[in-house]
Amino acid sequence: MSKADSDRGEHKLSRASVGRFSLYLRHLERLHREGTATVSSSLLGEALAITDAQVRKDLAYLGNLGQPGIGYPTQELIEALRHRLGTDRTWKAVVVGAGNLARALLRYRGFERQGFHFVALFDSSPEKVGQIVEGLEVLPTAKMAEAMPALGAELGVLAVPADAAQEVADELTAAGIRGILNFAPTVLRLPTGVSLVAVDLAVQLEQLAFLVHLTQETGDTR
Amino acid sequence: MSKADSDRGEHKLSRASVGRFSLYLRHLERLHREGTATVSSSLLGEALAITDAQVRKDLAYLGNLGQPGIGYPTQELIEALRHRLGTDRTWKAVVVGAGNLARALLRYRGFERQGFHFVALFDSSPEKVGQIVEGLEVLPTAKMAEAMPALGAELGVLAVPADAAQEVADELTAAGIRGILNFAPTVLRLPTGVSLVAVDLAVQLEQLAFLVHLTQETGDTR
Repeated sequence: MSKADSDRGEHKLSRASVGRFSLYLRHLERLHREGTATVSSSLLGEALAITDAQVRKDLAYLGNLGQPGIGYPTQELIEALRHRLGTDRTWKAVVVGAGNLARALLRYRGFERQGFHFVALFDSSPEKVGQIVEGLEVLPTAKMAEAMPALGAELGVLAVPADAAQEVADELTAAGIRGILNFAPTVLRLPTGVSLVAVDLAVQLEQLAFLVHLTQETGDTR
Repeated sequence: MSKADSDRGEHKLSRASVGRFSLYLRHLERLHREGTATVSSSLLGEALAITDAQVRKDLAYLGNLGQPGIGYPTQELIEALRHRLGTDRTWKAVVVGAGNLARALLRYRGFERQGFHFVALFDSSPEKVGQIVEGLEVLPTAKMAEAMPALGAELGVLAVPADAAQEVADELTAAGIRGILNFAPTVLRLPTGVSLVAVDLAVQLEQLAFLVHLTQETGDTR
């Protein structure tokens, strides 16, 4: 689906494991807030629709944290996951493209809670520049390279139309961005050392249609 | 990441293959529009940053379409992919939650081109009901079950806050929806026979941070 996907074999962890780690983290944080001190792999798996065996395999990657008959200490597991995922620190991000998607992203409170801080919003449209969107002033894309050093952002979110995406990605990369989350329905070419996660919304819907299609075709009622 | 992910081993095709199929389809459609009659696995792979071997393995699943020294006939490959993905037909979908994300989704032209037709938009907020969003009148969520038979929608897109997601998913399921695309950052429980694809935006950003973190940690400059 993305460059990162095709590279998965070269990482120690698969993209799927990383996705599950995020889910574990979110669920464990909820358990911790509710005062749960320990959790078993089977309860964690049950809550997230992941097999017990898979949970134990994933968590073994974090070290020997589980104790037979007791389970995993919730808080230690949270800390180990955050450390492993690199979210025990703050990440600054910029958003390019001040449309509805950017508004939805900036409004979503979950990001701040996970340590993601949106520090700037850029757009190339003169009508949008200067507007305030969710507390951020829209800055001209042309000023991106100039503004970036002071912003200290490492991540860039691309919420621009497909035909503008590669150009903006090149500008973000030139400005020192280390990773791009791409919502534009296009394949980006990035230099080595710059990470990419692509979220193509049409692909997600297509995959859903495929799963429904497969269920109908095979009479599979899972 | 989702129920579907944890079930991947039970499908004949992995979720990753299905994701790549969508990418192949998009790229082949572009080549076809440009008048390219045949394409090689290596050119296809190069354009999408997927290895030649992986492309050949994926496309073999569609039958013996490739010809040594010539490549794959573009149009036949497009038809085979559409048939396999279930997108050689129209899919009707409803959106629940008339916020910025819904606006971004409804405005995105790519869906119609891929055969997805949004037929209704629901929201539980009395202020939003009756508004026109991208040509659709916002209908009250309470009327969903009643409205659904006439709409003939099979897919539902959940763009509501996390704490409302399970309830709305239950209502969609009761109304006969066959598949749900969930944007709410929560794990949904769905009955057997209802497919799920989850897009948790915070998880995507977390995965990007993880990839950047890993690159920094290992000095891996890929």
